[in-house]
Amino acid sequence: MLEKLIDIFIKFPGIGPRQAKRFAYFLAGQNAKFIKNFSDLLLEIKKEIKQCPSCFRFFSGNQCEICTSVGRDKNILMIVEKDVDLENIEKSGIYNGKYFVLNGTLSLTNNHVDKLRFKELFEKVKKEQPQEIIIALSVNPEGENTALYIIKILEPLSKKITRLGRGLSTGTELEYSDKDTIDNAFKNRH
Amino acid sequence: MLEKLIDIFIKFPGIGPRQAKRFAYFLAGQNAKFIKNFSDLLLEIKKEIKQCPSCFRFFSGNQCEICTSVGRDKNILMIVEKDVDLENIEKSGIYNGKYFVLNGTLSLTNNHVDKLRFKELFEKVKKEQPQEIIIALSVNPEGENTALYIIKILEPLSKKITRLGRGLSTGTELEYSDKDTIDNAFKNRH
Amino acid sequence: MLEKLIDIFIKFPGIGPRQAKRFAYFLAGQNAKFIKNFSDLLLEIKKEIKQCPSCFRFFSGNQCEICTSVGRDKNILMIVEKDVDLENIEKSGIYNGKYFVLNGTLSLTNNHVDKLRFKELFEKVKKEQPQEIIIALSVNPEGENTALYIIKILEPLSKKITRLGRGLSTGTELEYSDKDTIDNAFKNRH
Amino acid sequence: MLEKLIDIFIKFPGIGPRQAKRFAYFLAGQNAKFIKNFSDLLLEIKKEIKQCPSCFRFFSGNQCEICTSVGRDKNILMIVEKDVDLENIEKSGIYNGKYFVLNGTLSLTNNHVDKLRFKELFEKVKKEQPQEIIIALSVNPEGENTALYIIKILEPLSKKITRLGRGLSTGTELEYSDKDTIDNAFKNRH
Repeated sequence: MLEKLIDIFIKFPGIGPRQAKRFAYFLAGQNAKFIKNFSDLLLEIKKEIKQCPSCFRFFSGNQCEICTSVGRDKNILMIVEKDVDLENIEKSGIYNGKYFVLNGTLSLTNNHVDKLRFKELFEKVKKEQPQEIIIALSVNPEGENTALYIIKILEPLSKKITRLGRGLSTGTELEYSDKDTIDNAFKNRH
Repeated sequence: MLEKLIDIFIKFPGIGPRQAKRFAYFLAGQNAKFIKNFSDLLLEIKKEIKQCPSCFRFFSGNQCEICTSVGRDKNILMIVEKDVDLENIEKSGIYNGKYFVLNGTLSLTNNHVDKLRFKELFEKVKKEQPQEIIIALSVNPEGENTALYIIKILEPLSKKITRLGRGLSTGTELEYSDKDTIDNAFKNRH
Repeated sequence: MLEKLIDIFIKFPGIGPRQAKRFAYFLAGQNAKFIKNFSDLLLEIKKEIKQCPSCFRFFSGNQCEICTSVGRDKNILMIVEKDVDLENIEKSGIYNGKYFVLNGTLSLTNNHVDKLRFKELFEKVKKEQPQEIIIALSVNPEGENTALYIIKILEPLSKKITRLGRGLSTGTELEYSDKDTIDNAFKNRH
Repeated sequence: MLEKLIDIFIKFPGIGPRQAKRFAYFLAGQNAKFIKNFSDLLLEIKKEIKQCPSCFRFFSGNQCEICTSVGRDKNILMIVEKDVDLENIEKSGIYNGKYFVLNGTLSLTNNHVDKLRFKELFEKVKKEQPQEIIIALSVNPEGENTALYIIKILEPLSKKITRLGRGLSTGTELEYSDKDTIDNAFKNRH
């Protein structure tokens, strides 16, 4: 019985068997009201949280507030990996265009391409014809690989595909910076 | 909506706001079947998982297999902090007596004594009169403090209260051992 | 005796009492030849390693190869915190100008300004009049503080003071990036 | 020049290329007096610090204070891995016998037996005939392996070979304890 619950928690991001077991015992120790609440909330979430058919972010309410906002620039489309990245960029307040959530990056070893929304991205760009497409993926081999692939498939459709600028990020120490970061920081000096 | 889910996950042991948010988005991205399963399982757990009124461990089935087992020595009672500790001791196969789950240790700063089952422990010992009581708490200030308190309340009821042996545990390096560990390892040499 | 050696090792960057003691016993266990070698090398270092009176880097040989090189652009001066930063930038191969080693950054709590070479920097810039001064300090509060101070003292002398570009550095994940990094990455997109 | 110094520091316990380089620049930046002091101290150490021919610990002064002390029990011999272990046991104040420093443990992969003083240990035990020999090695596979080997070679010479007691060490949590530790803690309960 608890094993079934442990099996579910192991699927959660970043959770191993030990913590999954702790979660199961934690829930076993909660009162009926807490459990009922949690159980109901899960079903409600499934009803209330929808995935936008245009940008694929999750939202609650009637429609995706970003995609339907007239105040946002529909001529710029930013491609992000996942919802939390989008949320973090929104928090910065610097960006006022539209988004597309890719749902991950291409793994280098084991290409689970199926879950990535390259086809949906292609269709969206073809239809909406944004003037600029910004690739906003993490700076690691998987992100680089994915960015190159996106450029390849979107190049025929778009004149301007940009990428977020490279350079020194907050906390960077020059002693430990790699060649790429130093190169970009030097070229982008201002 | 997701905020409510995040609020629940923050209560899980060892989970901060960042991981709670990841969990919420992870669930938002699961299909209806997964969510239904999870939601149902939670309710089922509450029905199926019971807490033993004698040792306070969680179990599924009709009765606590440890408390009702005739093959286990009812003359020894081991006091543990939580279910996972009990499970780990069971896995070692060395112990064949009964248990009592205390539900935590006395905090040094903020004594949440309410959730600890000192009263239930006292009643159980008074009624069952085990020949030996083994205190099996973690070796840290909270565990020590709790052990001393247990000894104080059980001493009038029991002639033999023991504690798990101290010494070098697996992985201990002598260079980094504290005085207590060295003292005990020396006295318990064999 | 060993205590004296431990006292010296504690002064080494990043070394605490435990590792200092290990070093002392490590040396106690080395043969006479190793110790003689080490001891001689230290004295030799003091003789052979000189500090360039112009850029303040350490070098061996007759003269600072960077400051005296005719192949390097004397119109650009890069200000770095310490020798290893300079070395790392040299390794990148992107920069071909001159350097100035500041010897640290302004601490926010406790301004040990004495060891920082602001006066020497001012004199060098006044005398050599480089066309561009690049501030290449680490991106943390101390580095920012120091950069602002450098700008203040050099502004009367120089028309072009630049700073290394900010943005996503290698390894940056958008989920965990702060506002500054996102802002700069967005503005420097290309 | 600095490379030679870096090569020496890389040999220090726990030091990699990056920290070795930092040490070298740290020394390059010290004044002549500091370097002279350090260099002299190294030579002095070699003269002043002797290795006891009986227990093989390092000491300064005329003779090993532990081996020559009449107040210490020569009927007990404790075998330790290295000087810092001995020092830590001395600090505990619990032990008043003699020592033998083995100089490491048998590696499981690559048996550098040469530096280990098994022969010297055998000779010492043969000659001094202590009533008890205590093996005080770290509790890891290498320590276990070495202990078994010591028992094998000393068994013909000694009636009583003991090992430090196993059990819960300070900081041990029962949730994460392995079978061996639980077994021993249970058997050594008191």
